[in-house]
Amino acid sequence: MNNRTKMAIIGLGARGYSLLDMAYLEHPDVEFVAVCDVYEDRVKKTADLIESRGFKRPKELTDYKKILEMDEVEAVILATSWDYHINMAIEFMKKGKYVGCEVGGAYSLRECWKLVDAYEETGVPIMMLENCVYGRDEMMLMNMKELGVLGSIVHCDGAYNHDLREEVVFGKEKRHYRLKNYIHRNTENYPTHELGPIARLLNINRGNRLISLTSTSSKSVGLSEYIKENKSDDDELMNANFNQGDVVTTVIKCANGETIRLTLDTTLPRYYSRGLTVHASKALYTEDNHSLYIEGDHSVKDHFKWKEHWGNVEKYREKYEHPMWIEYLKDGIKLGHDGMDYLVFDEFVKSIRAKSDVPIDVYDMATWMSITALADESISTGSKPVYIPDFTNGKWIHRK
Amino acid sequence: MNNRTKMAIIGLGARGYSLLDMAYLEHPDVEFVAVCDVYEDRVKKTADLIESRGFKRPKELTDYKKILEMDEVEAVILATSWDYHINMAIEFMKKGKYVGCEVGGAYSLRECWKLVDAYEETGVPIMMLENCVYGRDEMMLMNMKELGVLGSIVHCDGAYNHDLREEVVFGKEKRHYRLKNYIHRNTENYPTHELGPIARLLNINRGNRLISLTSTSSKSVGLSEYIKENKSDDDELMNANFNQGDVVTTVIKCANGETIRLTLDTTLPRYYSRGLTVHASKALYTEDNHSLYIEGDHSVKDHFKWKEHWGNVEKYREKYEHPMWIEYLKDGIKLGHDGMDYLVFDEFVKSIRAKSDVPIDVYDMATWMSITALADESISTGSKPVYIPDFTNGKWIHRK
Repeated sequence: MNNRTKMAIIGLGARGYSLLDMAYLEHPDVEFVAVCDVYEDRVKKTADLIESRGFKRPKELTDYKKILEMDEVEAVILATSWDYHINMAIEFMKKGKYVGCEVGGAYSLRECWKLVDAYEETGVPIMMLENCVYGRDEMMLMNMKELGVLGSIVHCDGAYNHDLREEVVFGKEKRHYRLKNYIHRNTENYPTHELGPIARLLNINRGNRLISLTSTSSKSVGLSEYIKENKSDDDELMNANFNQGDVVTTVIKCANGETIRLTLDTTLPRYYSRGLTVHASKALYTEDNHSLYIEGDHSVKDHFKWKEHWGNVEKYREKYEHPMWIEYLKDGIKLGHDGMDYLVFDEFVKSIRAKSDVPIDVYDMATWMSITALADESISTGSKPVYIPDFTNGKWIHRK
Repeated sequence: MNNRTKMAIIGLGARGYSLLDMAYLEHPDVEFVAVCDVYEDRVKKTADLIESRGFKRPKELTDYKKILEMDEVEAVILATSWDYHINMAIEFMKKGKYVGCEVGGAYSLRECWKLVDAYEETGVPIMMLENCVYGRDEMMLMNMKELGVLGSIVHCDGAYNHDLREEVVFGKEKRHYRLKNYIHRNTENYPTHELGPIARLLNINRGNRLISLTSTSSKSVGLSEYIKENKSDDDELMNANFNQGDVVTTVIKCANGETIRLTLDTTLPRYYSRGLTVHASKALYTEDNHSLYIEGDHSVKDHFKWKEHWGNVEKYREKYEHPMWIEYLKDGIKLGHDGMDYLVFDEFVKSIRAKSDVPIDVYDMATWMSITALADESISTGSKPVYIPDFTNGKWIHRK
């Protein structure tokens, strides 16, 4: 145990708890020595979990500031609600602790810049734990890009298509913060699951960057109708007005001419999807029918018979699977969102132990999170095109 | 034959010829008495076709103005290149002839208004022959909407996803006009196949209307790469710069709060699709995996098992097929784009014979075509939000 990296985790709701349960406690090089949440019941439950897995019972805290003073803690995981991520991260960076931060969007550009400043002042790395960057298809596409199979990528779609009505409405009792966000804000509130992998494919902040966006919201109908049918006894919810539109479209332009289209679709009935598409000069990938259309393998002559290649991504696994996933599958993948949670965590742990920089760094985090604040601005001003700052201050031109 | 409606057709390229061959000559109430194209070989070939089907040989013309003076012609079909549609249409309306016009986009708002003026001055109906409005799935969704199965519609996607590289590049010899458009313009150049059905679903110009849009274009890569690999012996093409971006996204807002997202994707390798989605409070339709997700029939509890309902639209045919399609399938569908060409033509013929107004009228045509001019404006000004005029001058509030 002594050789393990000592960590703390803050935020023990559904996400924080399951990260430990399904992925982090499997890691051979890590030990959690402190757990923290404002709710004591969560703290106790999580400490029980850790103990039950054969570890020493961690310190049980309701005040995260105590962790700032724990010298043995080398890194913290932030799995709190969205609005705490950035300020907490900065406090820990100032104490020299690596920060692994769960995903979410920013409320203002100012906080994105503060994050960048904190990194530049302290030199302490922060990694956004964007699991979807390590998704199996996403990484296979990265591999195909590097092998030259895709040709030039010109457009990508991505989405957070996830029916969260039950979570938002019934999560109220579970102290869920999404409800308040859906009542008050109207924006692309959760862009990174889809934007992260796409940013990788398009070399964002490494020779390319996001330069502008427009964002447009539909009306809000889904939650009100859902509440009327499923929770009409709750006066507070029955009287709530939801500012958040059901479907939000954000269109981003890149310095090198590519376009990215993001969809937020979380309050209407639907199946889950990250709606990834990659439109390139040699191939098309479509998540929603799980297909690859590759110039040469497929031809315009039979392009009306498209149902025939639904699901054919599996046929290309052997040829194009990413080396990291080949390895991972050999070892037997760990649980938690199809194994992605473990992979992103493992990358973080490796960086800490090597005392190196992290693969999804502060510039990526600031850029990806800024989309939420900028989409808010665009929606609030009638879908006006909005400039996306260069959080690297020019370093994107040379970064690899 | 005497009781048949006498028509002329102008524009006998691939589209005009196949309309006659695959659909129009099957119609029991119509006779084509004149055919016209600037190319004589096309005129002769089409006259041969008509004669070979047992009709009297039509008048063979290279000057459409001659048709203006043919009193027996009650209606004309315009299947010329995009840029001739509107001015020709106006000339025929002024002569009291019903006009059935093939699809395309407008070059300016001015020509859309001129079309509306022509109708309001003459009272002569013009119908855009937008076949996709009569597509089997599109009409099934109309029926589901009317049955209340969808709940409130809040967002729709539509696309013209069609790999036209071969047609654009090799169509040069076939005098194809798309090439010049791809060299010079950059816009959503072909919006109506997808927008038409969506406009129907959202009651556009009948209690709702399109109010604004943004449009964003990717870089242009597809055609140049294609030419380099497939036609490098053609100096003119090798030296051509294509202004048209490979993927163009247009996001439209409606007066009643719905959003519509259009994609033009015609110069990259891909399967054909109109990319229709309907996001509503009780159901989701997705063309690209041909699925319906209906609240009650499907549940958030198994929303990660989404592959299971790929293709399930067929299961709902019996329950939700549109009455017009039930009838049509009983009779045995006519050829031509899955039968849509015949259906839209039949609707046009019925209106002429009843001397009534047409189901896709001048206001729809002006509105749908205007998207091309307005997307051009938005793209040219950095994705600026652009106002969509009310071509009905307020009549949309009361129209059914």
